[in-house]
Amino acid sequence: MQVTVLAGGIGAARFLRGLVSATGSTHHQPSVTVIGNTGDDIRLFGLQICPDLDSVMYTLGGGADEERGWGRANESFTVLEELRRYGAKPDWFGLGDRDIATHLVRTQALDAGYRLSSVTAGLCERWQLPVSLVPMSDDRVETHVIIDDPDSGQPAAIHFQEWWVRHRAAVAARQFVYVGSESATPAPGVIEAIAAADVIILPPSNPVVSIAPILSVPGIRAAVTQASATVVGVSPIVGGKPVRGMADACLSAIGIDTTATAVATHYGVRREGGLLDAWIIDDADAASASELVDKGLRVEVMDTIFANPGTAGKVAGAALQLARELRA
Amino acid sequence: MQVTVLAGGIGAARFLRGLVSATGSTHHQPSVTVIGNTGDDIRLFGLQICPDLDSVMYTLGGGADEERGWGRANESFTVLEELRRYGAKPDWFGLGDRDIATHLVRTQALDAGYRLSSVTAGLCERWQLPVSLVPMSDDRVETHVIIDDPDSGQPAAIHFQEWWVRHRAAVAARQFVYVGSESATPAPGVIEAIAAADVIILPPSNPVVSIAPILSVPGIRAAVTQASATVVGVSPIVGGKPVRGMADACLSAIGIDTTATAVATHYGVRREGGLLDAWIIDDADAASASELVDKGLRVEVMDTIFANPGTAGKVAGAALQLARELRA
Repeated sequence: MQVTVLAGGIGAARFLRGLVSATGSTHHQPSVTVIGNTGDDIRLFGLQICPDLDSVMYTLGGGADEERGWGRANESFTVLEELRRYGAKPDWFGLGDRDIATHLVRTQALDAGYRLSSVTAGLCERWQLPVSLVPMSDDRVETHVIIDDPDSGQPAAIHFQEWWVRHRAAVAARQFVYVGSESATPAPGVIEAIAAADVIILPPSNPVVSIAPILSVPGIRAAVTQASATVVGVSPIVGGKPVRGMADACLSAIGIDTTATAVATHYGVRREGGLLDAWIIDDADAASASELVDKGLRVEVMDTIFANPGTAGKVAGAALQLARELRA
Repeated sequence: MQVTVLAGGIGAARFLRGLVSATGSTHHQPSVTVIGNTGDDIRLFGLQICPDLDSVMYTLGGGADEERGWGRANESFTVLEELRRYGAKPDWFGLGDRDIATHLVRTQALDAGYRLSSVTAGLCERWQLPVSLVPMSDDRVETHVIIDDPDSGQPAAIHFQEWWVRHRAAVAARQFVYVGSESATPAPGVIEAIAAADVIILPPSNPVVSIAPILSVPGIRAAVTQASATVVGVSPIVGGKPVRGMADACLSAIGIDTTATAVATHYGVRREGGLLDAWIIDDADAASASELVDKGLRVEVMDTIFANPGTAGKVAGAALQLARELRA
């Protein structure tokens, strides 16, 4: 069974770890293709940083810091400390020493003219990644956040990372803009992986800043809605709260309630031109299942909190089983 | 007294530490201008590395590793270790984590269009450097070494760093080429500092790969030979051996004996169109003093081994005293 996943960062990465064990996908025979969000990419100190791609790469490659939830295990921050000594700005982004090596390799290759998709494949070779990891686009697409400037009171656009990391999403967002998406094209393999999939999965990633940037690249949303695959989503919202991260601050900015039902409604039902065939929600939201079934979704209720990789494997297994049943 | 020094790396840096104490030069009132060699600069992993400028900066700024003789104190090599894990090449250059921060700041500024001389001044602000440090040129000049290719037997050019660091100068050098020097111009302030100096010092730097690249930039040699200053050199050769480094391998390649006398002869006497008015040699070479005096040089014989900064101060003090006497 070929599986294609639209993925953000760490939430997706942990789901993917379960999916790899549920599918038996391997480095040499990957049955899972991950289309990674690059909207949160940022160039700092001349380094091209791709936080979501790297979260997936490090987590599936066994090099991620599990407790912190981002970056490399056994990480040090010597370079950043020295950059601060030089007065270099911005210094709010947690740039680790091991992480910097990834960015150096990537930036040098990009500056030499290689495409991000090729460079990503090269980086993943080291990690013997058990999936194919493909950026949504080789073109630059950056998620910017429209806020009210604290000084002038006027609307101002800041990079998503500045809003998320520096301001901890505590400054009210008015709108999210995926700069460059209008003229971006899907990276090689993206449309093909969607078309060839038996199952397409929307993992518990942030709908606004992880999944939406991917869908903003012309051609990707249509490929999903028209795919022959079954599309299964896993709710990133449990009991009215994000499982992790600050998705509530993002959802409220675009007028969506922080509930599993509201996110499913936002994604839409496939037979009505939306994205989803099925939706997996947590036991905590069992009461909302019937409403979603009425909307035309196949709904699965289960423990979706990935306290351990085993749970992620069970959720991934349930997604595959739903797809099998709906295709039968 | 205004002092201008043509400087290579660590040998010059240690002499400069003595010169700073002998002159009382300070960050806010620098009486010493250092014209730094940039011929050994190299771009690795997209980072612009200036080993000689940094040796001077770290040593005078109090951030150098004294035992190792290059790079930063308390250095770690996490980024390089990770680069190797990615299979990134070349991996023979000792690129430390703290050092990388310097290169990131410099490279970002250079890529934004700032000149190396401006960027160097900016970096030196952090270190409150007690001298003005100016690169010989803002243009790219790279020292390459012509060797016999071990495979083909044909002459081949490799970057100086590859010859020096990777091959430890153990591959016979046929020639040194300062690529780009013909069309380079001295950085702003270089010619002015030579013209305004009361004393110009050639510290115990490698004559072939530290001093020669500086002199290869059109205009610099003539500025020295025509300067009103007294020019004093300190021999980098003591008892027929380099004080440090592998200057013998460089000197033999251009047909110069590894002796204090041969280097002085190579630099030449100023009244015959050469560079030197005076030459400081070590006690070990006292026997050669009369021959040098016969050539028309003022010669000082003393302990020139910088086992401690105090010795460097004495040698620097002697250089200043020689200049005073010759000007009187």
